[in-house]
Amino acid sequence: MYELAERLFPICRSITGDGVRQTLEILKVEYEDLQVYEVPSGTQVFDWTVPKEWNIRDAYIEDSQGKRIIDFKENNLYVMGYSLPMDRRMSLEELKQMIFTQPEQPDVIPYVTSYYQERSGFCMSENQKNALQEDTYHCVIDSDLKEGSLTYGEIILKGDTEEEVLLSTYICHPSMANNEVSGPVVTIELVKWLATLKRRRYTYRILFIPETIGSITYLSQNLEIMKKNTIAGFVLSCLGDDRTYSIVETKYGDTLADRLLKNILQYHFPDYICYDFLHRGSDERQYNAPGVDLPVCGVCRSKYEEYPEYHTSADDLSLISEEGLQGSAALMKKCIMALEYNYFYKLSCCCEPQLGKRGLYPTLSQKGKYSDAALVMRDLVAYADGRIDLIEISNRIHTPIDRLIPLIDKLLENGLFEIVE
Amino acid sequence: MYELAERLFPICRSITGDGVRQTLEILKVEYEDLQVYEVPSGTQVFDWTVPKEWNIRDAYIEDSQGKRIIDFKENNLYVMGYSLPMDRRMSLEELKQMIFTQPEQPDVIPYVTSYYQERSGFCMSENQKNALQEDTYHCVIDSDLKEGSLTYGEIILKGDTEEEVLLSTYICHPSMANNEVSGPVVTIELVKWLATLKRRRYTYRILFIPETIGSITYLSQNLEIMKKNTIAGFVLSCLGDDRTYSIVETKYGDTLADRLLKNILQYHFPDYICYDFLHRGSDERQYNAPGVDLPVCGVCRSKYEEYPEYHTSADDLSLISEEGLQGSAALMKKCIMALEYNYFYKLSCCCEPQLGKRGLYPTLSQKGKYSDAALVMRDLVAYADGRIDLIEISNRIHTPIDRLIPLIDKLLENGLFEIVE
Amino acid sequence: MYELAERLFPICRSITGDGVRQTLEILKVEYEDLQVYEVPSGTQVFDWTVPKEWNIRDAYIEDSQGKRIIDFKENNLYVMGYSLPMDRRMSLEELKQMIFTQPEQPDVIPYVTSYYQERSGFCMSENQKNALQEDTYHCVIDSDLKEGSLTYGEIILKGDTEEEVLLSTYICHPSMANNEVSGPVVTIELVKWLATLKRRRYTYRILFIPETIGSITYLSQNLEIMKKNTIAGFVLSCLGDDRTYSIVETKYGDTLADRLLKNILQYHFPDYICYDFLHRGSDERQYNAPGVDLPVCGVCRSKYEEYPEYHTSADDLSLISEEGLQGSAALMKKCIMALEYNYFYKLSCCCEPQLGKRGLYPTLSQKGKYSDAALVMRDLVAYADGRIDLIEISNRIHTPIDRLIPLIDKLLENGLFEIVE
Repeated sequence: MYELAERLFPICRSITGDGVRQTLEILKVEYEDLQVYEVPSGTQVFDWTVPKEWNIRDAYIEDSQGKRIIDFKENNLYVMGYSLPMDRRMSLEELKQMIFTQPEQPDVIPYVTSYYQERSGFCMSENQKNALQEDTYHCVIDSDLKEGSLTYGEIILKGDTEEEVLLSTYICHPSMANNEVSGPVVTIELVKWLATLKRRRYTYRILFIPETIGSITYLSQNLEIMKKNTIAGFVLSCLGDDRTYSIVETKYGDTLADRLLKNILQYHFPDYICYDFLHRGSDERQYNAPGVDLPVCGVCRSKYEEYPEYHTSADDLSLISEEGLQGSAALMKKCIMALEYNYFYKLSCCCEPQLGKRGLYPTLSQKGKYSDAALVMRDLVAYADGRIDLIEISNRIHTPIDRLIPLIDKLLENGLFEIVE
Repeated sequence: MYELAERLFPICRSITGDGVRQTLEILKVEYEDLQVYEVPSGTQVFDWTVPKEWNIRDAYIEDSQGKRIIDFKENNLYVMGYSLPMDRRMSLEELKQMIFTQPEQPDVIPYVTSYYQERSGFCMSENQKNALQEDTYHCVIDSDLKEGSLTYGEIILKGDTEEEVLLSTYICHPSMANNEVSGPVVTIELVKWLATLKRRRYTYRILFIPETIGSITYLSQNLEIMKKNTIAGFVLSCLGDDRTYSIVETKYGDTLADRLLKNILQYHFPDYICYDFLHRGSDERQYNAPGVDLPVCGVCRSKYEEYPEYHTSADDLSLISEEGLQGSAALMKKCIMALEYNYFYKLSCCCEPQLGKRGLYPTLSQKGKYSDAALVMRDLVAYADGRIDLIEISNRIHTPIDRLIPLIDKLLENGLFEIVE
Repeated sequence: MYELAERLFPICRSITGDGVRQTLEILKVEYEDLQVYEVPSGTQVFDWTVPKEWNIRDAYIEDSQGKRIIDFKENNLYVMGYSLPMDRRMSLEELKQMIFTQPEQPDVIPYVTSYYQERSGFCMSENQKNALQEDTYHCVIDSDLKEGSLTYGEIILKGDTEEEVLLSTYICHPSMANNEVSGPVVTIELVKWLATLKRRRYTYRILFIPETIGSITYLSQNLEIMKKNTIAGFVLSCLGDDRTYSIVETKYGDTLADRLLKNILQYHFPDYICYDFLHRGSDERQYNAPGVDLPVCGVCRSKYEEYPEYHTSADDLSLISEEGLQGSAALMKKCIMALEYNYFYKLSCCCEPQLGKRGLYPTLSQKGKYSDAALVMRDLVAYADGRIDLIEISNRIHTPIDRLIPLIDKLLENGLFEIVE
């Protein structure tokens, strides 16, 4: 997975343009049934309009000696996203008006964009800016902003039912590792794994989209079916570092997606951080917006906005690792398996079944001699009354779902459990 | 407001009689559409009967030298409320049977009444009582208790809807400042302010009544319409001192009135005291009684029964101040404005609206650069899904309603917000 | 009650057999309308089968000198419950395979059974076992295990309604005092008391059954009527010691039985222990099992499994006392009286009634002079709005139900209270 991250990292993405297309082409190599869609600039999508397409080939600032102060080819964060083309000479004072820095982190280049107001701008570290001398600078941005389209990718994995799980990740940031490439890398890994499952209860809708305008555009085309079918969804981002996990709750914090994540994380990563909806920032904003109201949480390791390298040049490949990515993929697989098993189970007989005669419970009774396994089995059976789902059973009996799944398989095989439809 | 308090303070009020009428006449000068009603003694009002009317002209105790030990004209608390007329000479021992004091506060005259059992009695400070010498005392109460009526005042301010807000205060105590005149003074101030509003969503029913028997009498005449229309109500009393605010919850603590007061006070007076219904004592007793069940809370600064001067001669004009009265009026205005704006709002588009193009959100994106105002706007919009009212939105986004009102006005003007009926 | 416990203690009971029958005969002397039922071995009861009947006459181990190492007549715990007959000589090594001890409590004989797998075995203290010398031992169990029946007792006390309260206790352990005889002793005391009540609102179903297989058998015969009528039930066990009370909640901890017990115990034994359903172990297991779902809690002093003497020879008559048994009976009577009075009450008038004219409230008003009794009356009346039951009123006004019952009687007599059907 890290190797894929390395391939995706250098591309200069934005919310439109060839960077998005190149990214989707690389992902298509990983899973060929990825469908790519183009939506023309100017299309009205709810309250928004698909913007002009932005592409950039080169940019630099040269001093009067012809020495390049900054060079887009070295780091694509040097240019403010969606900068208009320019080729001008200017004084230091004039130049400084166009430069964005992050003064409280003087060593890093910040990531800045201006999608919906036409501007030009450069970004550099506070230290670089302070080192600039009085001079005449040659400032070049070889970009264009014109009618084109917004590009996104979609994979639908059909399941036994029309009920859907949404996995959504974004592909719209230039070279940042955790807050960009970790999302699509983990998501495509989940796609490959989901495709190998013998059966899928749910249909999986997996999206690779530009943040905000991408989800708004996609929702404007698919809202009805998504509102009808979506039982839970997850916005996957910032999943490659080695810090603990975090989630962003839905608007009211009480959907199946919230309940699932809290259940899994409380057992496996009890130090995880639960951010309420006021801390949202990625596409859970749109999925939870009025009129959309889908049960979609955010899932991260270090949450965007909350870690120091966020939206700067320090969010590079050294911040993420194979282990970080693998851990996130493993967590999401655990979540998905729990979801697939999250039925309302009902014992097929009245009273406790005689587990002993089936080898599922000890036949000798003496105090202190019941194994923990026997007690878990007994508790699972006791709550299989069809009133609460597996997540709630797991919460009540203080036992992780992945430990209950093999027991459920046995109880289903023995005909002792039925699924309440 | 303090000046009005000074005019009301000297009057000897009780649950019936001319003191009530004089009080209402003074209030009528402030707001002429105050309607005064008389209900004859003997009228059956639910389980109660309107009592005889009590009036008192004079009272005193003289020693054998003709020296006045106490004089009603100096302080009307010297006579137990509803005392029968008397003109008798008696020994010290006999006199002591008729004297009420507050031994744990030896300097003050307590306020004592016996409305429903006919008695006579005097009140004085414990110290005064202890200083009495063996002597023959001439005890005179020039009162009468006879068929008459119970008097109350009512103001109805019509609004756009028939839904009503109740403001209720009492006018039945003799010369006490906080626990009597502060209530009608603040209430008449609210009436004058409400009358100036360009529009009122709600109809306001404002009552100036004797406590307990007055609210029972009023309810017996108006219960049906009040049960049909009342959305929230407030018993206003003890609002003139300078100590912090307190509320008395409704019977189950969960009505709109409770939610509103807790919302406002948590932001503006976080050290306020929330008393549960077991601490009730004024007319919220009757408004919340079985069969009435109206959503009415008590609002005070220092709550009756809970401050040392309560129901004694120490509750005089020095205990209240213009600032104290003004603060209470300002708090209630804030509550009323919040109530008037407390709709279920719904965003008129799907997904977040593009606030940037309307100048309601920054167009440049860089980490750490969103103003608090931008985030409040974003959160307000996110919860405008028609599921929760403004009070609940305010609670969830940790922002006072008076800060949200100007944003709501803008969003309504822009057509982005709709009111869910 | 202790005297009855002494009579029941020596009998060697198991889940079937003559020990159960003798126990029921003794209880029938206490209350003659106890009905005894026999259910044949082999009867299918839900997922279980009524087992063969086990009886034992004698058992011992003799060393080669003819000295008895253990003797069933001294303590019936020496034989594993449901042991097959045997008469064999064996080496020490072979013998040790058949011996069960409780190594962490080296002085006591543990109580061990093997109902559903045919085995033989002896129990002794760890110290006894360690003291055994190399020798040839003569091991005799004079028992039989053959077709017969399972025996249980039932008492139905009819009430004014068909709604039922279940009291269930077990009679299937050999000589143990707290974890066996205390249950039937307290239960029969409750039966005798219930039979003397002038009227009973509820019908009482009282069961004396072998644990687990007994409740499953009984439920298989009576499930429909019990599901229709049972409003609350209690499994009574371990009620004779002097330690504090404990309860075992129902599956969701929210039934009338849970609410009642928590209400009574919080006032009278605030140090009681509330165990959640994961700590169940007696017949509340079956009463709460899927498909049964009855509102039945466990009630104990020291809960089974939680006190050191549990399921050992140390649970003897010295562990229980007359005071312990009386206290438990008194607690349950309090619970039953509360249940009988647990109506939704409604005040028959609007507003507060005029309690003063009925002598139920003071007629003189002065601060600090209201008695606690007056305030309780006022609060009881205020919450009599037909919305909450007496248990909830008691919780809200912080007053035990047994203090409210005499007030309710007065209010009903005065026509001020009505019962909401």
